Amino acid sequence: MTHTYRLVFDCPDQAGIVNRVGDLITKSGGWISQSNHHSEAESNWFFSRIEVLADSLNVSRQEFEELFKPIAAEFNMNWRIVDSAVKKRVVLMVSKGTHCLADLLDRWNSKELDCEITCVISNHEKMRSLTEFYGIDYHHVPIEKDNKQVGFDEVGRLVDSYQADAVVLARYMQIIPPALCEKYQHQVINIHHSFLPSFIGARPYHQAHRRGVKLIGATCHYVTQQLDEGPIIEQDVLRVNHSDAVEDLARLGKDVEKTVLARGLRAHLEDRVLVHGNSTVVFN
Amino acid sequence: MTHTYRLVFDCPDQAGIVNRVGDLITKSGGWISQSNHHSEAESNWFFSRIEVLADSLNVSRQEFEELFKPIAAEFNMNWRIVDSAVKKRVVLMVSKGTHCLADLLDRWNSKELDCEITCVISNHEKMRSLTEFYGIDYHHVPIEKDNKQVGFDEVGRLVDSYQADAVVLARYMQIIPPALCEKYQHQVINIHHSFLPSFIGARPYHQAHRRGVKLIGATCHYVTQQLDEGPIIEQDVLRVNHSDAVEDLARLGKDVEKTVLARGLRAHLEDRVLVHGNSTVVFN
Amino acid sequence: MTHTYRLVFDCPDQAGIVNRVGDLITKSGGWISQSNHHSEAESNWFFSRIEVLADSLNVSRQEFEELFKPIAAEFNMNWRIVDSAVKKRVVLMVSKGTHCLADLLDRWNSKELDCEITCVISNHEKMRSLTEFYGIDYHHVPIEKDNKQVGFDEVGRLVDSYQADAVVLARYMQIIPPALCEKYQHQVINIHHSFLPSFIGARPYHQAHRRGVKLIGATCHYVTQQLDEGPIIEQDVLRVNHSDAVEDLARLGKDVEKTVLARGLRAHLEDRVLVHGNSTVVFN
Amino acid sequence: MTHTYRLVFDCPDQAGIVNRVGDLITKSGGWISQSNHHSEAESNWFFSRIEVLADSLNVSRQEFEELFKPIAAEFNMNWRIVDSAVKKRVVLMVSKGTHCLADLLDRWNSKELDCEITCVISNHEKMRSLTEFYGIDYHHVPIEKDNKQVGFDEVGRLVDSYQADAVVLARYMQIIPPALCEKYQHQVINIHHSFLPSFIGARPYHQAHRRGVKLIGATCHYVTQQLDEGPIIEQDVLRVNHSDAVEDLARLGKDVEKTVLARGLRAHLEDRVLVHGNSTVVFN
Repeated sequence: MTHTYRLVFDCPDQAGIVNRVGDLITKSGGWISQSNHHSEAESNWFFSRIEVLADSLNVSRQEFEELFKPIAAEFNMNWRIVDSAVKKRVVLMVSKGTHCLADLLDRWNSKELDCEITCVISNHEKMRSLTEFYGIDYHHVPIEKDNKQVGFDEVGRLVDSYQADAVVLARYMQIIPPALCEKYQHQVINIHHSFLPSFIGARPYHQAHRRGVKLIGATCHYVTQQLDEGPIIEQDVLRVNHSDAVEDLARLGKDVEKTVLARGLRAHLEDRVLVHGNSTVVFN
Repeated sequence: MTHTYRLVFDCPDQAGIVNRVGDLITKSGGWISQSNHHSEAESNWFFSRIEVLADSLNVSRQEFEELFKPIAAEFNMNWRIVDSAVKKRVVLMVSKGTHCLADLLDRWNSKELDCEITCVISNHEKMRSLTEFYGIDYHHVPIEKDNKQVGFDEVGRLVDSYQADAVVLARYMQIIPPALCEKYQHQVINIHHSFLPSFIGARPYHQAHRRGVKLIGATCHYVTQQLDEGPIIEQDVLRVNHSDAVEDLARLGKDVEKTVLARGLRAHLEDRVLVHGNSTVVFN
Repeated sequence: MTHTYRLVFDCPDQAGIVNRVGDLITKSGGWISQSNHHSEAESNWFFSRIEVLADSLNVSRQEFEELFKPIAAEFNMNWRIVDSAVKKRVVLMVSKGTHCLADLLDRWNSKELDCEITCVISNHEKMRSLTEFYGIDYHHVPIEKDNKQVGFDEVGRLVDSYQADAVVLARYMQIIPPALCEKYQHQVINIHHSFLPSFIGARPYHQAHRRGVKLIGATCHYVTQQLDEGPIIEQDVLRVNHSDAVEDLARLGKDVEKTVLARGLRAHLEDRVLVHGNSTVVFN
Repeated sequence: MTHTYRLVFDCPDQAGIVNRVGDLITKSGGWISQSNHHSEAESNWFFSRIEVLADSLNVSRQEFEELFKPIAAEFNMNWRIVDSAVKKRVVLMVSKGTHCLADLLDRWNSKELDCEITCVISNHEKMRSLTEFYGIDYHHVPIEKDNKQVGFDEVGRLVDSYQADAVVLARYMQIIPPALCEKYQHQVINIHHSFLPSFIGARPYHQAHRRGVKLIGATCHYVTQQLDEGPIIEQDVLRVNHSDAVEDLARLGKDVEKTVLARGLRAHLEDRVLVHGNSTVVFN
């Protein structure tokens, strides 16, 4: 993979932003290998993601960041400059469903996902052997019905200790406590097994079957304190029909779940997702 | 098109149904050109649609119907026998959106939709000229904000007088009164501009934009007294992204709306839709 | 619609292109409302489309164009600056299939397609009345089996006389002669009723049925001298199954054909399509 | 899973087939849990798949088969009666691509695929550890460039010795010799990484990129002696665009490949695929 710096920012829209940033890049000798911009008319907000070839810069990354700071301040940007060579550290969480975890581990193992998978945390023992087969730490942290906080304190300690850049709920069937969501805002990624906002909450395939929908779906989103209400990163659907019982929906849905989760995670790892309010801009 | 009789029924499931019906068909000399069956395990309900070549029967249609009655009674069937040569009589209703109506009229005119379009009813004058271009009656029935009943009484009279087998709301932006829904149960077909049950009610594209979904959709369903809650006949979706403003969603959505409505209507016209509770079986 | 100038160009890739162009825009007071860039690594080619709010410029369009010329020359650009307020002039051609024409006319009439439809040319009389209903000129130009050139000479004269910016083959079942393709290079848009490069040539639905494919499709492409080999603008597909006979494929395919053609034409009208070799860049 | 006998047959079409078969089932006390029929008008051929609850029969399976034979003979049927409780024996073959194999192994391990995976055969060592992790035999059978027959003789011996009901080429990058195809006719299942018949042969993603298609696909088909020409079981596609380089197409395509292969294999395992000439009927 090409070594780049990813300059990612959003700010109130006004004339001249792209050019001010472009000027700095040019003066720093930077070759832009990819750039995306989006102006949202309604909120008058500007979003941008620019990849600059690392080798092309005639200043160090630190110097470039220093040079960028005044521009960021002037335009009131939310911003970050990310080094593509530094792999993001990912914690996977799973309960008993194997499909998303097995899928992510194979993608990681075959170098499709550019990240470090630091560990798997689960409220069950089930996925230990596959995880350890891939040489990854596995932590079984039971979540007691009567006292979930004990378990989640341990989860929080683990996530902290692994210095996670992303926590992926790969069919983790427990609700993440608000404090953890807040601490890792826009870093906790969930796959919900419905086409949100349809069928929020429990047993969405049962809900879908009862409503008689002709397509089922899955939604990858950032977790917030409002259950299943966080910013959507990616969604997809699959055609079903009357001959599909609830268990068929659940089985067919797995294929959408794992694909949508992998796409969403990939976009996150490549810093293509910019959150604004409760929506996302996902640059292609 | 081949001339057939469509035997459509549903009933509590038990062994021997297909065979009893098949026996009768065989004894009557009938050649089955198409047959579909579905057993729904949860509700223990059986659904069937059998097409018999009209020419193959050695009894008249009336005689066949008489012979069928005892079987229907024995198995407690909801049933009908439909002559494919008798075109269904369709009333179209529209407000100001042109895309669904123009689409249906072209499909009808090019013989893709096998029905008689008896008239178009609208709360506006806008679509009169196109309707009349196709040689179809156009009735402008204003719906007054303060007294909608007057208008809907007139709509009801028109639908009755045209002896409608189906009333198609081709982007008709008024809520049909309960009495009319009830009288024409499972005959009033609506196209809702969202992937139901997401975004029930008004301005679904605005709702979709606010929620930041990555796919938008449309739903063709039978109208019941619960707004946007009736049995779903057909649905489809389309990928959108952050660069699509509300008006883009509305524009892009039109393509899904008209296609989904046409597919749903076609299934209805061919007696492929069997309603059970709030779900449908749609035989392919 | 917002009034913009669309600056569209492609050239050999090198550092600094975006910034040189951006500098000029900034100095001219221009507010960029949308911009897309693409670098193709393999061919080392750069593509760009920038929309500048017309009102924001402190120079006239002519002056801006003069200022741009040296940059274009320096970077060896293929380029154009298009005024969004000037509607493109479109000639539609059709044979006997009504669906694409009826669809385009409704889209145009409802202001979804931002263009002027100057006339319809057909080798049949069939679509005259609908065309004239919409107040558009209709020219019946028969194509004689033994002497097609006579007809196509007349077609060429008409296209010239209407000063067409685009010629849309909306299911026109004759092969356009090479000279006309060449004269209107990347301006003649065809809809082919298969997912190219599958089923090139005649009767693609028959070919598809014979091969037993599980999806059928349609392809919108620029017409070149190689039949069905021109640069692809847009494609889509639809699921079918064994129960669909050839005539079902043809019927179902119509929905894909008209949608794909409309999408492709729209991209062309908005100057979103850049052709390079036999491929296209289609900016979203 | 419910224990059923699957009665699968095809024969020249004529009146009375379904009823003769139904009579036998009724007389034998059989409860039909699912039935599908298809009449292909062009070839005048009839296809049927009927599932009968095993427990409902008042005769043994052998007796039922004996009773069926005269009917099969009378109507010139290709037929089989399959016991759903007997798992099909599957041999997987793979080269170096991990995604299809990892996917199938997880589906099998989580009981989604109802079969016995007897062994994995590969021309490389790469997938040994994952295969053995799942407790499955792994055979490394090198295919020498100059003398492929030696390797394929060994493959043939292995397939025979495992008494395979299906051989799945899960991204096996060698051409299966004609003799093996013939011996296991309609039992060798391949996943081809294009939407056939587009891009037959080597490096389809390179071909797709060169042609500039807007969708890429995958095809699951039975292997015949004509490369990539066998009967298609399942296909699907995925939208791509100009920003996707060849390696992106290859990466994105994996998701379609593994899903399409799994769907095709599942249909095969459930005896839903009936081959006729070079086409398939796949009952839902």
